[in-house]
Amino acid sequence: MDALKRDALSRIERTLEAAVARAAAPPAPPRLAAALHHAVFPGGARVRPQLCLAVAAACGNDAPGLSAAAAASIELLHCASLVHDDLPCFDDASIRRGQPSVHAEYGEPLAVLVGDGLIVLAFETLALAGMERPDRLGPLVGLLGRAAGAPTGLVAGQAWESEPYAVLEDYQRAKTGALFVAATMAGATAAGADPLPWHRLGDRLGEAYQVADDLRDAVADTEELGKPVGRDAALARPSAVAEHGVDGAVERLYRFLDDAVDSIPACPGAGMLKDLVLLQAKRLVPKSLASTAA
Amino acid sequence: MDALKRDALSRIERTLEAAVARAAAPPAPPRLAAALHHAVFPGGARVRPQLCLAVAAACGNDAPGLSAAAAASIELLHCASLVHDDLPCFDDASIRRGQPSVHAEYGEPLAVLVGDGLIVLAFETLALAGMERPDRLGPLVGLLGRAAGAPTGLVAGQAWESEPYAVLEDYQRAKTGALFVAATMAGATAAGADPLPWHRLGDRLGEAYQVADDLRDAVADTEELGKPVGRDAALARPSAVAEHGVDGAVERLYRFLDDAVDSIPACPGAGMLKDLVLLQAKRLVPKSLASTAA
Repeated sequence: MDALKRDALSRIERTLEAAVARAAAPPAPPRLAAALHHAVFPGGARVRPQLCLAVAAACGNDAPGLSAAAAASIELLHCASLVHDDLPCFDDASIRRGQPSVHAEYGEPLAVLVGDGLIVLAFETLALAGMERPDRLGPLVGLLGRAAGAPTGLVAGQAWESEPYAVLEDYQRAKTGALFVAATMAGATAAGADPLPWHRLGDRLGEAYQVADDLRDAVADTEELGKPVGRDAALARPSAVAEHGVDGAVERLYRFLDDAVDSIPACPGAGMLKDLVLLQAKRLVPKSLASTAA
Repeated sequence: MDALKRDALSRIERTLEAAVARAAAPPAPPRLAAALHHAVFPGGARVRPQLCLAVAAACGNDAPGLSAAAAASIELLHCASLVHDDLPCFDDASIRRGQPSVHAEYGEPLAVLVGDGLIVLAFETLALAGMERPDRLGPLVGLLGRAAGAPTGLVAGQAWESEPYAVLEDYQRAKTGALFVAATMAGATAAGADPLPWHRLGDRLGEAYQVADDLRDAVADTEELGKPVGRDAALARPSAVAEHGVDGAVERLYRFLDDAVDSIPACPGAGMLKDLVLLQAKRLVPKSLASTAA
């Protein structure tokens, strides 16, 4: 398990490095090149690409170059959304992953462009690897597009913050769930398997992850989180903690994780995937709640 | 010729309308949906998608759904770049195509998200039509990605404005030329033809168009342009007028157009394409120069 995880993480980093190196190669403007690198490295936990590769492995992973590209593309879309979410007109966050956010370090114009560039790079990365299996490229681009754009992806999720009223679950499903769903479904698609049975796993993990994020924002400290805390309340954003309280949110987190484990389709890699989800579950609970919520 | 142009324009509008309708469909946040529509309609001259369709027609256009999607995708990327370029941190332009810019009408957060959403929509639109000809999808996504991103596309071009020093031709080639090159090469690719012989036509037309834009910014009035004038000088941006003067810029414009016409590869539709380029040429010269520069 640990060796498998190390191998997956190393494939993800190598694929991301190759992708960013293409975008940052000459004649790219030097400050843009540096800012692109800053947005992707060092990474966070790389949760979504790991999930994508784990599902691809469970489905036989007969095109490893394509599954690695799909995993990296999902992470690039995630990084793009973080860079734009941190902009002054949204969260105005100056810290991300324990270092200055892109706009804090390189200014707002380059932060807008880095986000744009990473979205484009995600699709280019997929297209390059897709030459190997052209029949799988269209469905993969479609899955990633649905997760990133409107009406149901990251763009739509973030845009709910500009509406006078948003339903919490619609908002969170678009803002967080969509990319988890893309991770599981793209993992299956890249391996030539039917993606539909993998929808629910991504959806439930996305819900769990979003609730965990809300909990950490409410109860963790800045050092643990690597970014400012208390932003949801300060910005009056919809949040599972605001809607259900800390105890209610913890209960939802565990329910979503149970659902996720139960949803894993029967396949050779099902046991390994269950282990991965349960391992993730431990990481999701904020340290300050771990003793009370176990 | 006029009937052909009307037919092309109508296919472009229908394909754009279908694409935006998908992104703006429920459950899209209603203000995002309205802002997406505002960014694409009513359009400008739709120069790039017309060029794409004209090249596809010259190459036999054996997959009209795919060439229409490629043309629309190029226009969506163009619209995305306009929305982001108009943001306060770049041009801070409150007027575009004679109406309020997206951020002026819907606020900065939605303008950032509309740009992101249109980039994603461009690739989704291509993927959907690409199901018909999977072997052409990878090359098309690659061409559009190269034109939109870094190191040589729109993102790189705009990022040169954040560097202390930029070479005028590198800047303009990335900021304007790249999407014209994508238009000609994608038109050929969508029709199953070799795209390489079409590179030069796109490149020369892109150069001509950028010089014409610089000239209009320097000599036209706001009413003719539909957006504020004098921005290049006010923002100390690299510009053909700043570098070569008005007369030098006009001379370059005509040289690029001559080169463009000369570069058209021998093919059944070559004559029609030449007519289209010459017709465009007339539109490119600012009214206030048309009498002196003829």
